[in-house]
Amino acid sequence: MQTVKAYQEMVESALKDCLRTQPAAAASLVEAMEYSLLSGGKRIRPILLLASCEMGGGTCAEAMPYALALEMIHTYSCIHDDLPAMDDDALRRNRPTNHVVYGEAMAILAGDGLLTEAGAMMLRDAMHRSDLRGTRAAEAILRRAGIAGMVSGQVMDMQMEGKPIDRDAVTYIHTHKTADLLTAPLEAGLILAGCGDEAVAAGICYGQHLGLAFQQMDDLLDVIGDTESLGKQVGMDALEGKQTWVALRGVEGTREDIREETRKAVDALACFGERAAFLQELAMDLTHRVR
Amino acid sequence: MQTVKAYQEMVESALKDCLRTQPAAAASLVEAMEYSLLSGGKRIRPILLLASCEMGGGTCAEAMPYALALEMIHTYSCIHDDLPAMDDDALRRNRPTNHVVYGEAMAILAGDGLLTEAGAMMLRDAMHRSDLRGTRAAEAILRRAGIAGMVSGQVMDMQMEGKPIDRDAVTYIHTHKTADLLTAPLEAGLILAGCGDEAVAAGICYGQHLGLAFQQMDDLLDVIGDTESLGKQVGMDALEGKQTWVALRGVEGTREDIREETRKAVDALACFGERAAFLQELAMDLTHRVR
Repeated sequence: MQTVKAYQEMVESALKDCLRTQPAAAASLVEAMEYSLLSGGKRIRPILLLASCEMGGGTCAEAMPYALALEMIHTYSCIHDDLPAMDDDALRRNRPTNHVVYGEAMAILAGDGLLTEAGAMMLRDAMHRSDLRGTRAAEAILRRAGIAGMVSGQVMDMQMEGKPIDRDAVTYIHTHKTADLLTAPLEAGLILAGCGDEAVAAGICYGQHLGLAFQQMDDLLDVIGDTESLGKQVGMDALEGKQTWVALRGVEGTREDIREETRKAVDALACFGERAAFLQELAMDLTHRVR
Repeated sequence: MQTVKAYQEMVESALKDCLRTQPAAAASLVEAMEYSLLSGGKRIRPILLLASCEMGGGTCAEAMPYALALEMIHTYSCIHDDLPAMDDDALRRNRPTNHVVYGEAMAILAGDGLLTEAGAMMLRDAMHRSDLRGTRAAEAILRRAGIAGMVSGQVMDMQMEGKPIDRDAVTYIHTHKTADLLTAPLEAGLILAGCGDEAVAAGICYGQHLGLAFQQMDDLLDVIGDTESLGKQVGMDALEGKQTWVALRGVEGTREDIREETRKAVDALACFGERAAFLQELAMDLTHRVR
């Protein structure tokens, strides 16, 4: 079984090279994209994709373009989300945000570039396959990143700011803003491995529960965490009147729910037997700090 | 042979429905996306794609998802380009720009949504085909819209503002900012039709020359056109110190070059014989005002 660290190293090494394959790209654009893409981070989404593909009987090598694309999509969404017109954040992972370093115009274009290149990178791989698995995996990722997924989650997050806390709204926002992009790697990874509908559905179930636990944890850390260890300003959610799980359920209620969602995520993979061990442990490790 | 109007009506009708297939999407997001997507326009890019596919022996029906996706990509690039941090335009096609109506945050997300949905829409079609033509067509479109194409063109356009006019810079900007997105429909349309490399290369050649003529015309109209009939403020390029063809070659030199690029575009399609008539006439019609 692989370790988190081994997966991380594989992803880091591949990320370093992946934008260098486009000689026609403007150097200043690539620099701004890489500033955010190579700024560390836990690489959870690509790890989930590689591990899912292996769990389903596939290899890391065949899943890598999709794993990198997913990290590019996550990075683009962070860059746009940090813009002055959006969350107006000056700090991410203890570094100045993209627009602080490169200006707003370049940050918008760096985000656009990462999103488009994510799609192009997946299709460069998919078009050379002998089947449609790559095409289907790319579809799953863009669907969950788009207007039926993450982008709508962002819109609702913004529009519900300052409104009374509403369980349906919090659930919609958490599902689409966060869980969809943690479900995409499971769906795509298992499709790439050639799994059938039932196995893919089990992976989706894991991703959704893990995604909810993940965002509930994020909400909780904004209340009980500290700025330095998180690398970003805490206490902002309440200040901005965000729809958070803590506002809905309180600190102890949120802890309970994180335990419950984590358990459901772990259980969802039972059908994979021992091959699920890595992803089951990962779910428990990710949330153990706050459970 | 189809007429421009017949193609336009087909595209308009399909555009009206295409975002309504996503029930999970936030209604306010879809409204902002449709405000720009359905604001008229000549629909040149989708028409080029449909006509190319027909020229290559394919049908409009099989090419439509890709044609709509291309218009979505064009629309997203206009929305982001108009933002205060970019060109800061308040008017497009005689209507207030997206951010003026919906605010900057929503305009950024509407653009992100259009770009992602463009990819997802192509892949929903491509994944149900029996071959990889759809995947290859989608790759061509995202490649030319991305960091080796349009996005890098935008970056250079911005970075070269106020610098001395430079032929290489103008050519790079025109090729990537404009011609790449007019070449993509030729490449994708002919791939969808099942054409071989040589025919696709001829289409690419047409697209590149037409694209250069198109941007040269845009530069010229900014000098000799009027605000009302163009639906946007004229005279801005010189004011902002943009790299334009008129600054490089003067009004008469630009007219000469437009004639030359149009002729090269028309000649490039000779290998298609009579099937090329529509696209050849289109190239001449598009530029006749200023030739």
